[in-house]
Amino acid sequence: MKTGTLETLFHDSLRDIYYAERKILKSMPKMARAIQSPEVREAMEKHRVETEGQIERIQQIFEMLGKRAQAKTCPAIDGIIEEAEEILESYGDSPALDAGIVASVQAVEHYEIARYGTLKSWAQALGMKDAQALIEQSLAEETATDKLMSKLATASVNPMAAKAA
Amino acid sequence: MKTGTLETLFHDSLRDIYYAERKILKSMPKMARAIQSPEVREAMEKHRVETEGQIERIQQIFEMLGKRAQAKTCPAIDGIIEEAEEILESYGDSPALDAGIVASVQAVEHYEIARYGTLKSWAQALGMKDAQALIEQSLAEETATDKLMSKLATASVNPMAAKAA
Repeated sequence: MKTGTLETLFHDSLRDIYYAERKILKSMPKMARAIQSPEVREAMEKHRVETEGQIERIQQIFEMLGKRAQAKTCPAIDGIIEEAEEILESYGDSPALDAGIVASVQAVEHYEIARYGTLKSWAQALGMKDAQALIEQSLAEETATDKLMSKLATASVNPMAAKAA
Repeated sequence: MKTGTLETLFHDSLRDIYYAERKILKSMPKMARAIQSPEVREAMEKHRVETEGQIERIQQIFEMLGKRAQAKTCPAIDGIIEEAEEILESYGDSPALDAGIVASVQAVEHYEIARYGTLKSWAQALGMKDAQALIEQSLAEETATDKLMSKLATASVNPMAAKAA
């Protein structure tokens, strides 16, 4: 692999999202435990299982590249999770906590949507059809989770928080 | 304003995006200077001007809340910008640089889409119609910029980078 190519950029970005997904998987149980809404908790549990599958897909793509699955520190997801934990601390006992957790989950989802969207278009440009198909599956899951969170927020989480205020 | 309410959460998140937008505005010229594609540079310049307007909208919303416009450090955008700068350093002379910059811009856009999407639905739940309308304008600009970047990436940036590799 030459340096400074689209292929190395793809590999770097795969290492970034590999780090991100594993960090997300670790931080999910804490958020899920704090949530009050049973619908949101159920959606988070479903997405936790999906995240495990997404990590396996990334490992498959590393194999396709003939590379060892190796994470690269991702300051973006570190910052996003740091903000999520700040909300858990500041709003731990408040009626707005669920709204804050949903917002945190959606910030996480959007980071993944951005990175998988990019990886998908790079895989396409590089003619990596099998990798592209795997990335598209994960991208579809992230997009669906984000949409579901928006729906639950508008339908119940936000109105309840607004009423309590 | 009571603590721990949806209203304080809205205010905290407004301070977060206020910090983020100003940081983005500062970091844009460096990215725009590095880009090779005239179409991407033009899109970034257009979005720089939009960002200035978005900052003014946030200031208007602070006024609506009767609060001083005050930023709150946002580790998420700090991390996203840190990754963008890392790409500028690592891919500075490479044919994949433009692809890396577009990816960075899209990570920034998705962070803003997540936060404005949340602020919009909180404003709605709180009956803040004027704030909601302002947020919707910024959200529409971020979404359009993200879509334009995807289009430019697929049409020219990625194929050129793949060819060079």
